[in-house]
This record gives sequence, C-alpha cells and structure tokens, in this order.
Amino acid sequence: MAGLAAVAVRADDGASPIFGVTLPAGYRDWRLVAPALEAPPLDEIRAVVGNDTAIDAYRGGTVPFPDGTVLVKLAWKRVPSPAFPPAAIPGAPTTVQVMVKDSARWPETGGWGFGRFVGGRPVDEAQHETCFACHEARAKDHDFVFTRYAP
Amino acid sequence: MAGLAAVAVRADDGASPIFGVTLPAGYRDWRLVAPALEAPPLDEIRAVVGNDTAIDAYRGGTVPFPDGTVLVKLAWKRVPSPAFPPAAIPGAPTTVQVMVKDSARWPETGGWGFGRFVGGRPVDEAQHETCFACHEARAKDHDFVFTRYAP
Repeated sequence: MAGLAAVAVRADDGASPIFGVTLPAGYRDWRLVAPALEAPPLDEIRAVVGNDTAIDAYRGGTVPFPDGTVLVKLAWKRVPSPAFPPAAIPGAPTTVQVMVKDSARWPETGGWGFGRFVGGRPVDEAQHETCFACHEARAKDHDFVFTRYAP
Repeated sequence: MAGLAAVAVRADDGASPIFGVTLPAGYRDWRLVAPALEAPPLDEIRAVVGNDTAIDAYRGGTVPFPDGTVLVKLAWKRVPSPAFPPAAIPGAPTTVQVMVKDSARWPETGGWGFGRFVGGRPVDEAQHETCFACHEARAKDHDFVFTRYAP
C-alpha cells in the first residue's frame, strides 16, 4: 500500500533534520505492530504501526528489514480511564516518531532514517542526533528496531 | 472490508455462550482504535482494533455505532522491554474480546453481542454474564463502548 513512495508525500511542510524524513501519508490507517508503555516521567502509552512492507517483514521474520519499510510510533500521555479507573488510556498526543529503511540513502545509520514530530512538525537537530546512537546501542541485534510484533 | 459478514467466518470452532459471537476473520489486520493499559493484577497492555464500519463511526463521531460494527480488544501481559527497561511491551497474549453490533439480534444488551476468547476458545457462560452489566454501568453514555478513538 505505501512504501518509500508514501514518504515522499509530505503530510506537513517539515522534514526531519539530519535525515530529511517526513510524516508518511495515511499512517493512521496502517496495521498495528505492537502497543507499548513508557514509564514516568514520559508516562506515555504508545502504538507502533507499519506499512505493508513492515508488516510483511515482521510476519515473515525478515531481519534486516527490507528497503521501503516504514514504522511509525504514535504516543500519548497516559491518563486514567474516567469510565474505569483501573485502566489507563491515551490522553493528549505527544510525539510521532518515524523510521524509514533505505540502505542507499542512510548507509551510516544502519540504513535507517529517523524523524521525530510534535504537532506535525519535526523537532530540532539535537534531538535527532540521539536517535541512532540509542537504537545502535540497544537494538542492533534486531536491525536497530526496538519494537517486536505482538501476536 | 469486514462487517457482519466477517463474523460469520469462524476463526475457530467456538462461539461465545449467551451471545454466539465468534472471532472475526482477519481482525489482526484491522486498524487501531486505541491502545490501553490495565493495572495489576491483570497488568496488561491492550489494543482495540475495529473493522471499517467501526473506524468510520469513530472518525465521524457516530454514536450509537451502526449495525455491522465490530470491535476487537487484544490483550497481552505487560513485561519490561529487555532492550529498554523504562518501557513495557506485550508479553504473552491473554484474552481477545469481541463486541459486535446487531440491534435486531441483541436488543436486550444495547444491540451488542460479546465474546471473550482465550487461546482462540470462548470462555464460560459465567464470564459472559458479566460483560453487559459492566458496560451498561460504566459506558452507557457512549453506546456501551469504553474505548475512545486515539487521534
């Protein structure tokens, strides 16, 4: 449905510093890879979705991920459910984070381009300098991708 | 893509007691409504997905939900991320819970049929007796549906 071509369709005017990654069109319609939870102080509920290339790779156990893979992590503040207090649900949206695989374009960062967006706009260069360092230190054994597919 | 027709395609042999709801085919490909978190002792990470009728209703603010709406809640144990301990991720799957809207079929439970599945098999009648009572007590103002769409 949407691979690298979708990334060229810019959902806002801004591309990420360093990488030039934009918000892919239509990502809110993509399939779920897995939800996650981030402890305080971030205190967020998150969900990673992937384009068709990403989902096919996850389900087939394809690592490294093929060029054209796009992963998007949506994040929201964690708030108590007003209807059922033992549950927590998404509150205000915080960041949207994007990883795009293109081995030729980003050879120095494992083939991945990164983008972190707040309110549809990319955050600054300093924040983008931290992306690959953390993924390299902690997720190198899974092609620099933290998230695993939730069955 | 999949409305009531999908419900007739049984992904396993078992239909839920009381309601006769089965696991809809292909629900793992459905779009995300919202993730959620359930406190201990359940201690679960969850994600609700919906068929096209459900997603259209959420995005259009349509309440009550139209006949043909199907919602599926996937749940997993919450486990620490081995790669990044401040995060928690899905562990073993626990339950899959289904709500199907058919006003003619289930007039006494707000038009909803319920199914709770463990390992692809429906749980017992006693558990299914609790579904509507809780949804009625706590989510009546949203057509008996707890989950709100996460933007």
